[in-house]
Amino acid sequence: MLIDWTSVALHIYDKIKAKVANMDTKPTLWAILVWNSPASLRYIKQKRKWADYTWVNFKLLELDADISEKKLLKKIEKFNEDDDISGYIVQLPLPKHIDENNIINAIKPEKDVDWFHPINQWKVLIWDKSWLEPCTPAWIIKILKSLDIEFHWQIVCVIGRSNIVGKPVSALLINEWATVITCNSSTPNISDFTKKADIVIIAVWKPELLKENMLKKWSIVIDVWFTVVDEKIYWDADTANIDKAWHRVTPVPGWVWPLTVAILIKNTLKAAKNKN
Amino acid sequence: MLIDWTSVALHIYDKIKAKVANMDTKPTLWAILVWNSPASLRYIKQKRKWADYTWVNFKLLELDADISEKKLLKKIEKFNEDDDISGYIVQLPLPKHIDENNIINAIKPEKDVDWFHPINQWKVLIWDKSWLEPCTPAWIIKILKSLDIEFHWQIVCVIGRSNIVGKPVSALLINEWATVITCNSSTPNISDFTKKADIVIIAVWKPELLKENMLKKWSIVIDVWFTVVDEKIYWDADTANIDKAWHRVTPVPGWVWPLTVAILIKNTLKAAKNKN
Repeated sequence: MLIDWTSVALHIYDKIKAKVANMDTKPTLWAILVWNSPASLRYIKQKRKWADYTWVNFKLLELDADISEKKLLKKIEKFNEDDDISGYIVQLPLPKHIDENNIINAIKPEKDVDWFHPINQWKVLIWDKSWLEPCTPAWIIKILKSLDIEFHWQIVCVIGRSNIVGKPVSALLINEWATVITCNSSTPNISDFTKKADIVIIAVWKPELLKENMLKKWSIVIDVWFTVVDEKIYWDADTANIDKAWHRVTPVPGWVWPLTVAILIKNTLKAAKNKN
Repeated sequence: MLIDWTSVALHIYDKIKAKVANMDTKPTLWAILVWNSPASLRYIKQKRKWADYTWVNFKLLELDADISEKKLLKKIEKFNEDDDISGYIVQLPLPKHIDENNIINAIKPEKDVDWFHPINQWKVLIWDKSWLEPCTPAWIIKILKSLDIEFHWQIVCVIGRSNIVGKPVSALLINEWATVITCNSSTPNISDFTKKADIVIIAVWKPELLKENMLKKWSIVIDVWFTVVDEKIYWDADTANIDKAWHRVTPVPGWVWPLTVAILIKNTLKAAKNKN
């Protein structure tokens, strides 16, 4: 079976919408765009679309691509202080003359709805539900909960140990009382572990690493990301050849946009509420 | 083979001592003692002993057991502001009329050498070596490194998911590129995982849960804690019956004191250096 994540996303959006409808002041999400590549513009368009859908104000600040790092930091300082801005994102990538880490570290953690600031990354290990959520790990948990997964007793194999996906999703699942096996690209005999798992989450940027014969019957596969080789897109799981009668898998292509953006907007609502 | 952790601890102490010898101002570690039970006094004595050994100043503030929470918080505020205090601990447990969480949350994270403040607990997920170290997880890593373990390629089974041991040690090991299986008391067929592991770390407070027949040949066992049942002490591993010819195991009884205190004093030195 292919997992229907669009309906999970819509469910989140509808809940946000209902909450926003009851607020005196609508939350406001700002995006700062310095490098307007076609990809960046596409991402911004998605965010605006779903912000509009949920009645969250969406505002865009476009800056010249040759803005200095110092001037950009000044803008961020103003965004941090401005009480009318609930949360904001700085659309990545930035032009090469700007150090992305300096920018990310300058964002006020309470307004960092994209969840890139180190203090937000740390916070998942001891999870406080009032706090902003890590966008990708949070939607993975949402999808699994939509399948009525009770994490106690579940064995989850996470392939990948990145700061954005592998580590925080492992931490969230340990918090949920799952048994978690965190593998990486050096793990020997990786199928020893995938074969034990009720759920496999893969985000390791290795084209079609995960094959049907590495899976236990009835297991669930969450494929998070892809690699581009010779202008062709390869996902981490060889989804085309995984039997959908035996496994529940996330559809590719389909990408994570509806859900990542859903958590981003949920974070904006949380940031607005936390402020009050 | 029994693992000789005393020499690991001594090695850390001697390195601290050499560094302190070169400092213009010696670091100062304070302990606040509210509830002077025999156990607390024993802990304090150990800390003083090793602080003396490393030439770190050790000072004790003894308070009446009936001090109000508000007054204790005032003291902590002063400790946070006092530049002559590099780091301090509040010896737990506290009398029942004081909420331990309120006290822990009031300690300035930069001076929290016992590593109890939530912000310190979060920080292990994305490890910054300049920061204070989690006392118990850090000595586990030290012991394994003293055995020349190269974490790449290693399979580590962590049994336990507490905030003080299981979660942070899992995070540190993932950072070190180990493949980490984090189990808990609900994990089904736990020996399926222990049998795959090159290293088993157990901190789950279940008397003698880990037996010889659950281990792979040549594996290493790190047993962190014990339970007291009917005034008898039971460790999590049945160490007496684990074959020392096939396995390297931490000795019980022997306890973790030399090493936990070593990291505590190392943190005090770090806190003093970070301040400058």
